[in-house]
Amino acid sequence: MASTVRVIVIGAGFGGLSAARALERPGVQVVVIDANNFHTFQPLLYQVATAGLDADDICFPVRAHLRKRRGTRFVLGAVTAIDLVDHTVTVDGDRVEHFDHLVVAAGSVSATFGVEGVDEHTFPLKTAVDALALRAHLLGRFEAAAASVDGDIDLGIAVVGGGPTGVEMAGGLRELIDKVLRKDYPELDLRHVPITLVEAADRVLGPFHPSLSEQARSALEKRRITVQLGVGVARVEPDAVVLADGRRVPAGTIVWATGVSGSPVGALLGVPLARGNRVPVAVDLSLPGHPNVFVIGDLALPPGTPLPQVAQPAIQGGAHVARQIHAQLDGRPTEPFVYRDKGSMATIGRNQAVAELPNGWKFHGFIGWLMWLGLHLVELMGFRNRANVLVNWAWNYVTYDRGSRMLLSHPPEASPHD
Amino acid sequence: MASTVRVIVIGAGFGGLSAARALERPGVQVVVIDANNFHTFQPLLYQVATAGLDADDICFPVRAHLRKRRGTRFVLGAVTAIDLVDHTVTVDGDRVEHFDHLVVAAGSVSATFGVEGVDEHTFPLKTAVDALALRAHLLGRFEAAAASVDGDIDLGIAVVGGGPTGVEMAGGLRELIDKVLRKDYPELDLRHVPITLVEAADRVLGPFHPSLSEQARSALEKRRITVQLGVGVARVEPDAVVLADGRRVPAGTIVWATGVSGSPVGALLGVPLARGNRVPVAVDLSLPGHPNVFVIGDLALPPGTPLPQVAQPAIQGGAHVARQIHAQLDGRPTEPFVYRDKGSMATIGRNQAVAELPNGWKFHGFIGWLMWLGLHLVELMGFRNRANVLVNWAWNYVTYDRGSRMLLSHPPEASPHD
Repeated sequence: MASTVRVIVIGAGFGGLSAARALERPGVQVVVIDANNFHTFQPLLYQVATAGLDADDICFPVRAHLRKRRGTRFVLGAVTAIDLVDHTVTVDGDRVEHFDHLVVAAGSVSATFGVEGVDEHTFPLKTAVDALALRAHLLGRFEAAAASVDGDIDLGIAVVGGGPTGVEMAGGLRELIDKVLRKDYPELDLRHVPITLVEAADRVLGPFHPSLSEQARSALEKRRITVQLGVGVARVEPDAVVLADGRRVPAGTIVWATGVSGSPVGALLGVPLARGNRVPVAVDLSLPGHPNVFVIGDLALPPGTPLPQVAQPAIQGGAHVARQIHAQLDGRPTEPFVYRDKGSMATIGRNQAVAELPNGWKFHGFIGWLMWLGLHLVELMGFRNRANVLVNWAWNYVTYDRGSRMLLSHPPEASPHD
Repeated sequence: MASTVRVIVIGAGFGGLSAARALERPGVQVVVIDANNFHTFQPLLYQVATAGLDADDICFPVRAHLRKRRGTRFVLGAVTAIDLVDHTVTVDGDRVEHFDHLVVAAGSVSATFGVEGVDEHTFPLKTAVDALALRAHLLGRFEAAAASVDGDIDLGIAVVGGGPTGVEMAGGLRELIDKVLRKDYPELDLRHVPITLVEAADRVLGPFHPSLSEQARSALEKRRITVQLGVGVARVEPDAVVLADGRRVPAGTIVWATGVSGSPVGALLGVPLARGNRVPVAVDLSLPGHPNVFVIGDLALPPGTPLPQVAQPAIQGGAHVARQIHAQLDGRPTEPFVYRDKGSMATIGRNQAVAELPNGWKFHGFIGWLMWLGLHLVELMGFRNRANVLVNWAWNYVTYDRGSRMLLSHPPEASPHD
């Protein structure tokens, strides 16, 4: 038997797990490295932030996922160095792991676009911790308002970014306030809590057909969400978003969902990065000059039209590079990556979503919402999570209630007896 | 119509919510104060610590619980002063709330019994934050062992205290290791992870019949848990429990479940406290000399045999004081509190529990476990939580898996964009 080939996969997101699942075969050892011990189903983070789901419902232990794969190991830690000459990855500054092939699937981080005040005063929505922090802040604002004698707590919310995340967040926030918080806080008048969605382009959901963008805008405005189109953000202040035309949108909570930037892990490759900190790769997703190194998902920028930084290109890219590594091991040439568009969806709330299939078919309203619901359930990884999500959603749908409203006054760090 | 009477209930545990539910009637305004915005179903905390349930599954938003009661308000905050002369309660140092009647249901905290090292080196299990911190520490130890090259991470666990919490924790830990972690960490040999239960008395489950204590001890030992009876703890070191006879029990994780002490809120009443920081009360649970002030649950010490510091005396005490306050408002005399023992239960693990009914009937093994399961499901507050718990338990039972294994590397505090 030939000696074992070692493949390191950096990242346990959609791309990394897709690669890991497809990579294992006799003679191949796979090592998955991630800074978290769980995979996050990012499309549903907004539901965690708006208390519709628990973080545990959309996070799945990586080790449980890889358990059936005897040739796959998991390493918990942050990648701090990559050496393409020595073929090593360093974890947490001191643990050095050798690779024969490398798959970089480190994803992306929330992009500030250099706007002043974003780091200090806004909440991103890229990780489970982001979603929990936003939820805690939101619920904390309502508790503070209930406790305030002079009513000086601004409950208004600004969401910056009119992509799927911003649209779903704005819709979810209105539902949370109308259906749950208005009942929870009888001492507050919550009929007119302002929610503003700010988008620099002239329509929301840019990648969708304009008719669906219009459907979404109309659905948002029906939910009393002010949609500000065609205006950028000049800066963010502690209690307001200042627009490029000088107007101020006062808000006690500011969600920043304008887009993403490649993970800082990309810079560890030592190659010039492209726009948005993405790593330019060849048609087969390999790093030019390094045929044994592949970059996939949000971090990768293959030639041609940039792929959307969502789950599908990462999942398909993972399966693709697994096949290319197998081809290399078998002495066959690699093939170009061909992305198959499976369509796009975004939900604005109860009974309301827009969906667009690659053949041009468009759906909105209740039918779009059923499609959105079905797809997300099927894709949510792991039966247990799926069953929990189904229970929560059925409960929310029938009762309009949302159960996940714990405010942890102390962080659940690993700390001894207080 | 007579002027409104204001009743403040301190604490949203079993006792406080029971009182609040029964108190409301026309002319009575109820204010519930708690430092958390959620009620914690404490009997299942050990399941959160051992990753069988999410914290959200056993925590229920107080505001949702009180929502149907229009005359009831919730205040989030810690009680920092009580003035029995001016009839006021101060919240968070500056918010002063007036009361006509006061119900103190502040519960208890984990007791260190003055043993050196307990604060610094052990994990209590009284709150949701405790359970999450213990879970994070436990899973962190296994990740550290997987990452360690010289195998110097002690995975051994010591549980101090042989009451229901200690017994259930020890049993739950063995199941977590045997059924989940052994599969999650193929790189580690986890067949012999030592678990030691230390109890100062000569049997576990002291309040149960001795035959059930013996059943429980035997069931624990069958699960390879070393049960050290009749020996106290001299002190706790960072990596070991030192017993009173000088023996050391090395352990990388030490759970402290020896018992509880009355909440510090009791001391704010300004009366001499009894053993275990409990507040001595009259037979009707009122504070002697203050007929409009009642103390219930873990914090109260009525005349006679001390009541067990578990859910039932608190729940029954809450309903009782609500009736007494109504009696006072109607000009009727108060009545003594009569506790109705409904029996006790503790589970050691899958298919194994002990149960004792007040008529002396005793159950153990599978029948005891079914009783335990049914009772806890019925008592878990709120349908949604019950459904989630049922899904998780069914899944765990069939697959031996446990889903809630997220390790949050950053605390989910309310903090802006990083």
